[in-house]
Amino acid sequence: MSAATAGGAEDSATLGELGEAGILSDIFASLRTTEAVLVGPGDDTALLATSGPVLATTDAMVRGRDWLDEWSSAEDVGAKVVVQNLADLAAMGGTGTGLLVTLVAPGSMPAQWARGLTAGIGSVADAWGVPVIGGDLSSSDGAVMVSVTALGELPGGRAVLRSGAAPGQEVAVSGSLGRSAAGLEILRRSDADWWPEPASAEAASRWVAYHCRPDPDLSQGVLAAQAGAGAMIDVSDGLVRDGGRIASASKLRLDLDEEVIADLAAEFEPVLGGRGALDCVLSGGEEHSLLATFPTGAVPDGWTVVGRTAEAGVAGPGVWWRGERATGGGWDHFGG
Amino acid sequence: MSAATAGGAEDSATLGELGEAGILSDIFASLRTTEAVLVGPGDDTALLATSGPVLATTDAMVRGRDWLDEWSSAEDVGAKVVVQNLADLAAMGGTGTGLLVTLVAPGSMPAQWARGLTAGIGSVADAWGVPVIGGDLSSSDGAVMVSVTALGELPGGRAVLRSGAAPGQEVAVSGSLGRSAAGLEILRRSDADWWPEPASAEAASRWVAYHCRPDPDLSQGVLAAQAGAGAMIDVSDGLVRDGGRIASASKLRLDLDEEVIADLAAEFEPVLGGRGALDCVLSGGEEHSLLATFPTGAVPDGWTVVGRTAEAGVAGPGVWWRGERATGGGWDHFGG
Repeated sequence: MSAATAGGAEDSATLGELGEAGILSDIFASLRTTEAVLVGPGDDTALLATSGPVLATTDAMVRGRDWLDEWSSAEDVGAKVVVQNLADLAAMGGTGTGLLVTLVAPGSMPAQWARGLTAGIGSVADAWGVPVIGGDLSSSDGAVMVSVTALGELPGGRAVLRSGAAPGQEVAVSGSLGRSAAGLEILRRSDADWWPEPASAEAASRWVAYHCRPDPDLSQGVLAAQAGAGAMIDVSDGLVRDGGRIASASKLRLDLDEEVIADLAAEFEPVLGGRGALDCVLSGGEEHSLLATFPTGAVPDGWTVVGRTAEAGVAGPGVWWRGERATGGGWDHFGG
Repeated sequence: MSAATAGGAEDSATLGELGEAGILSDIFASLRTTEAVLVGPGDDTALLATSGPVLATTDAMVRGRDWLDEWSSAEDVGAKVVVQNLADLAAMGGTGTGLLVTLVAPGSMPAQWARGLTAGIGSVADAWGVPVIGGDLSSSDGAVMVSVTALGELPGGRAVLRSGAAPGQEVAVSGSLGRSAAGLEILRRSDADWWPEPASAEAASRWVAYHCRPDPDLSQGVLAAQAGAGAMIDVSDGLVRDGGRIASASKLRLDLDEEVIADLAAEFEPVLGGRGALDCVLSGGEEHSLLATFPTGAVPDGWTVVGRTAEAGVAGPGVWWRGERATGGGWDHFGG
């Protein structure tokens, strides 16, 4: 590795030309650390100081499946994969303490893309004060995959599980629903030379941006835990599907409020029509807002109450909407 | 997902047919847990009880680069990727407390392969008492990738870093050197209808088995830490390359003992010749034996002393062999 390469001067370099050591020193060295990182990247493992039990989760993104280069920049991908992982920690009532990042890519991959990825990872990691403590690099014959593991802790002292909901609680969402799905739909249609009317163009651009780089308020997880949340999950596969997971784990029924859902869908209706808008709110994934149950009156400021929990009854656990069991969509990586 | 599929009765099923939930309930449910796992797979994150700081490392294997299906079974791949990660923990003086496993594979992948992978993961995880606490599944257009993150603790109370060696220490290896590389060489040659003479066939088979499924004694890491090891690393990229990492981090020179290296190479010489045998010992990766420095007389029983450390001098840090700086090989994922 030449000094010029190490300094990032050769912007046309590929990962194969940089080599493993070059990639590590050139690209990953820019990431910040914290005092809790007793040993950071560069030894056999990282060593992280802890206070109490450790949260651990992992989430990967695969090019062509979880993102398309035509739609998402390297920065977008890095930011999104970190958000996905930190949202899982938030959904337990936790915050991040460390990230491990694995990049699998062909040697022909421009180093500039990996720099962008790192910048995206760093932007979200820095925003939430979470250091990158380690990682791995592997070459492939063409596939590109970014896998992140996030470690965390529970500042509120308790973990909020999917199984903790009780009948008669309010069901609330910490932020938006459907924006990521609406953005994806816009991207799909725009391939066919379609773009929303001028009146909706600004909103559509925001949905697209949210799809490519979601930025949920991850601090709401700790607040929800402190407010006494019964059960919590982040909306990664859609309201109905993720709500169904709370319903299953807590063995109860979750009744969605038809009027509130309609209100949330109204944002998308001018562009996507009534059915499309409802699909976004009910089935749209990758939103990463938090969905939680609370004792009546304990819903934190800024959350939107979208329903109530009830005894499962003879029909068994599930999500109900308009008097029927909702089965709506959501994303299965293996289409099952 | 049908009940028959969940029970694993349909052995011809693909991952796409099983679906994400089916894969999780069918394949990953067989893995064991421990008391320290406060929350295991199935919620947003795992929650792990800890005692002291947490070790964290991650290592991935990619089909076609890190293994070939012609040579390695799914069980081999699962076992090897866990060994690689646990060896990194051992190289710090640590032991495993939890594993996160990510599988990226096409929907057309036979479920039977994923079951084999899980069996391999489970065999090593169980042998060392480490639970699988979480993971992720993603589909691909064909690429197959297994990524593992290992968390650990330090039973000896201290982390052994690469930077802790001092001049005048003994350099020792906890187990074999070169067997994985010798096995790989046999596999490569056997594609050309070659196989060792009958007198060496049994040894050659053992090297091949070690290459496909290395089984280093991972308990030696804690013992080395307790014996006062100065610096430690696991031999994943070859003795010269990994020894060079200790030399660099500790800013000293590592002199290999020519006679001991020759003795270690003698095992491979009848099959691979003098040069090939030396290459295995000096540059052979994926062995995952531990390489450590110790104060004179503190080398643990069963370890092989392969050299000594010395002041770096004007030539700077490095590994020396036969009076010259060794530059020997080792594996760079990006060939740099």
